[in-house]
Amino acid sequence: MARPRIALAQIDTCVGDVDGNVEAVLAWSRRAAEAGAHVVVFPEMTLTGYPIEDLALRASFRRGAQAGLERLASRLVEEGLGELTVVVGTIGERRLGPRNDAQADAAARAAVRATNRAVVLRDGEVLARYDKHHLPEYGVFDESRIFTPGHEVCVLDVLDRRVAVVICEDIWQDGGPVTALADEDLSLLLVLNASPYEEGKGHVRTALAARRAHEVGAPVAYVNLVAGQDDLVFDGGSFVVGRDGQVLAYAPQFVEHLLLWDLAEDDEPEVPGPRAARLTADEEVYRALVLGLADYVRKNGFRSVVLGMSGGIDSALCAAIAADAIGGEHVVGVSMPSVYSSGHSKDDAADLAQRIGADYRVQPIAPMVDAFQGQLHLEGLAEENLQARVRGVTLMALSNAEGHLVLATGNKTELAVGYSTIYGDAVGGFAPLKDVDKSRVWALARWRNHAALDGVFRPDEVPPIPESSITKPPSAELRPGQVDQDSLPPYDLLDTVLDAYVENAEGRAELLARGFAPEVVDKVLQLTDRAEWKRRQYPLGPKVTALAFGRDRRLPVTTRWREL
Amino acid sequence: MARPRIALAQIDTCVGDVDGNVEAVLAWSRRAAEAGAHVVVFPEMTLTGYPIEDLALRASFRRGAQAGLERLASRLVEEGLGELTVVVGTIGERRLGPRNDAQADAAARAAVRATNRAVVLRDGEVLARYDKHHLPEYGVFDESRIFTPGHEVCVLDVLDRRVAVVICEDIWQDGGPVTALADEDLSLLLVLNASPYEEGKGHVRTALAARRAHEVGAPVAYVNLVAGQDDLVFDGGSFVVGRDGQVLAYAPQFVEHLLLWDLAEDDEPEVPGPRAARLTADEEVYRALVLGLADYVRKNGFRSVVLGMSGGIDSALCAAIAADAIGGEHVVGVSMPSVYSSGHSKDDAADLAQRIGADYRVQPIAPMVDAFQGQLHLEGLAEENLQARVRGVTLMALSNAEGHLVLATGNKTELAVGYSTIYGDAVGGFAPLKDVDKSRVWALARWRNHAALDGVFRPDEVPPIPESSITKPPSAELRPGQVDQDSLPPYDLLDTVLDAYVENAEGRAELLARGFAPEVVDKVLQLTDRAEWKRRQYPLGPKVTALAFGRDRRLPVTTRWREL
Repeated sequence: MARPRIALAQIDTCVGDVDGNVEAVLAWSRRAAEAGAHVVVFPEMTLTGYPIEDLALRASFRRGAQAGLERLASRLVEEGLGELTVVVGTIGERRLGPRNDAQADAAARAAVRATNRAVVLRDGEVLARYDKHHLPEYGVFDESRIFTPGHEVCVLDVLDRRVAVVICEDIWQDGGPVTALADEDLSLLLVLNASPYEEGKGHVRTALAARRAHEVGAPVAYVNLVAGQDDLVFDGGSFVVGRDGQVLAYAPQFVEHLLLWDLAEDDEPEVPGPRAARLTADEEVYRALVLGLADYVRKNGFRSVVLGMSGGIDSALCAAIAADAIGGEHVVGVSMPSVYSSGHSKDDAADLAQRIGADYRVQPIAPMVDAFQGQLHLEGLAEENLQARVRGVTLMALSNAEGHLVLATGNKTELAVGYSTIYGDAVGGFAPLKDVDKSRVWALARWRNHAALDGVFRPDEVPPIPESSITKPPSAELRPGQVDQDSLPPYDLLDTVLDAYVENAEGRAELLARGFAPEVVDKVLQLTDRAEWKRRQYPLGPKVTALAFGRDRRLPVTTRWREL
Repeated sequence: MARPRIALAQIDTCVGDVDGNVEAVLAWSRRAAEAGAHVVVFPEMTLTGYPIEDLALRASFRRGAQAGLERLASRLVEEGLGELTVVVGTIGERRLGPRNDAQADAAARAAVRATNRAVVLRDGEVLARYDKHHLPEYGVFDESRIFTPGHEVCVLDVLDRRVAVVICEDIWQDGGPVTALADEDLSLLLVLNASPYEEGKGHVRTALAARRAHEVGAPVAYVNLVAGQDDLVFDGGSFVVGRDGQVLAYAPQFVEHLLLWDLAEDDEPEVPGPRAARLTADEEVYRALVLGLADYVRKNGFRSVVLGMSGGIDSALCAAIAADAIGGEHVVGVSMPSVYSSGHSKDDAADLAQRIGADYRVQPIAPMVDAFQGQLHLEGLAEENLQARVRGVTLMALSNAEGHLVLATGNKTELAVGYSTIYGDAVGGFAPLKDVDKSRVWALARWRNHAALDGVFRPDEVPPIPESSITKPPSAELRPGQVDQDSLPPYDLLDTVLDAYVENAEGRAELLARGFAPEVVDKVLQLTDRAEWKRRQYPLGPKVTALAFGRDRRLPVTTRWREL
């Protein structure tokens, strides 16, 4: 008997694009078959994309997915791929009683609830189905809201070997289907995943899979989605761990990939497969941001982006990411100098645009600011915000007139403490640096320039970010001589306090116990709490840390809670 | 033995304001004792406010609530209220193992999980505790995310009568604690609630409580929160239903209230209590909007609001609501005419402001629009949006300079089809009409004017809304002669299609089967789907229907799903 060859098809699906996802499964199944695979496994909810959120509650959507599955089964046979065992994710349905009395008047609809399903296709038939048991409802996840859990395990035969299928969260919880599979004498456990990226998560996943491999006494093949989807990035990085927990094969992150691996006999030594190089932390985050933006642009039908280029580090890094995502020729950079803008700001912006090959424009804001001031006579903060808002209106006008996606260039630190102007620099459809704190912004800028010298992206590349954008003191340039550190603690301190307060949910007492000065702690906490209403109206941006602002951190705007 | 007198204290708590909520419980307990009550019951999560969202995940927050509970217990005794049985809601804690492996590195924190708890206080002691069993995770709720469920029932003795306590969702689910209480020979079931308002929900609640009364063979006393909290309004309307399901007592909606009711002996006829008049549908919705805005303003520390007054029906209704919520003298109305504004628009705006006693200002936008156009030369939609954005910048400038909360005046129909300008008329901290469709806007305006003639709010009041704002054809006045119906189906048809598509989640096939014309259906669905990104950045506004945009309807921005 031949060794089963397992193909992990790490593909970039699109939410709601059932037809496109079916075509992708066909194309990658063909590649798998051509590579001699017996089984090809796709990521969680392949046909629907992930996460589909409340689309799951629409009967018409579920019908569309079911039709897609049936079309896929026929097409596989028509294209001579019937013998291949194809494992895809989709949305399933279960008939239940009404969910609760509030919905009793909609009993007919409530009687059907959706599941997060894996389907095994062979010879045009559904060989097996599996409904995900554990529905995560922490962090960015809302699966209990939209799915009902499954309760059965799923084991199939592939070339007389016993192969089980589970889905994502099922391996993150102790107990559940993996424990139930321990006595099933498995040869392989397949896991379909849509596991959102956060820095360093790859190691957590392989360690976890190693524990499950030990539990079932069989290798674990873990296939992960690769995609940008709104505020999430799925990084791929699919892998196989052996019975002893060693990583036997590893796919690259952030690209579509077919990882091939041969399943040895149960009494034979396991066979290693290809192992992609691991990325450094900075490269990993940078590439996550590039994929997040590239997929947002492409999947939403844009072809170009526009952003304000201030000469500062945030807009410079954003522009570099945009150029890597969609090509510098599709990036429009607008310098919008005011009377407070320094000469080096304009020079640095022009330099950046030239380095990345952007369409560069200069649009002074004085005529519009003067027109407002002639009527409104604003001072102080109101005047500062006015400048930012005139820039926002200008970018939106270019977007309306020319069709570009507007990028908001603010970073996570700014968003935390509210140092952005709502309807000003906060305008945009997407905010690439939303989950990147200021300290990391500098690190990524330096990494990207080094990568240019090392030829990581392309040969003979000029470092995209002007050195002076990296080294000069950060300033919003909204009044004469202003620099950020006039009114904020140094960024390294600020980012450390924010990390403890926001990501680790530490209270004031814990922060003081760590040795932070009370005046720093109180200022940071007050600024952060007060900015919640602005964060609610901020554009989407890709999550790259353990806790991003947005659906990962759901706090009331109206609250009198103050850490004391 | 005396009949136990039950007090349902329908109070307006504030999220995070533990000190303030403790003081409110003390004050209303005193009132209850003075009225001869033996038991006083407060709404769900009294001490913390509701919903607290991810504040529940902060250990410091849970410590603060616990300290508040201990202070309350002592203060009740100090103030001579020790004999009163006080039932309050708060956040509890349970020690558990780590929730999942992803959080295993934070095992120390994960070992403690929060509960949604009721606590019974008497003589300065905690007499009983109850942790909510059923944690809703549909609609606007995310309770599984932040709480772990309880599994025990809670029965206490009050004057030798057996009284059980459950919380909100516990009675919305069949089975669970109420079923477990059926054999407990109860004399009364107390239910602590924070049940968000939606039109007509009062009848659903009493019908449900009647079923539970039948199940346990005892009356049900249902106390509901009254509060505006971000995008939710809690309407109060607390009540008691008898063993046979009849409503015995009913508190008014939208105001704090102490509802008193005497529990007869089990073999005696039940005693009716006070019954507030039921509101009409329009009055109910209108008062919900007023409370939602009033509490948002007060709890967030504002004292005034500013809004654009166009002379149209949306801004007129918004202004009337604002005047009812905080007083017309705290409302700033700004007419911002453009070259396309009609004379009647300016007249109607001035008339409205005068009727409600608002601070009225006129700020022409031509100088600013001309300044932008001198630089950008915009046409078509870009030019229309520019006008709206200049108005948005103007309102935000007044807010920054003078401290007013900016109100966005758009309605649910506009928000559905994307007929608002992001960063233009969509700017604001709060949007009173966010969940009110255009048809309802007219109905509410007419109702409010009739209410003035009937002296519902105050005697001898002039109808606040100019008749011509109600009767004229709606227009954004962004180009010459423009009216909404140039590019949209008639509003009654549009609102019917939107109701089916958005609130009932019907697909295109179901809509066509209902007889709607394909070209109308396709246009409405396309407009609605494309506007999702703008809805994400829209201000909060109060939910008054079964399904509001926002956390009630979570859809991806990036999706290629199209109903076909």
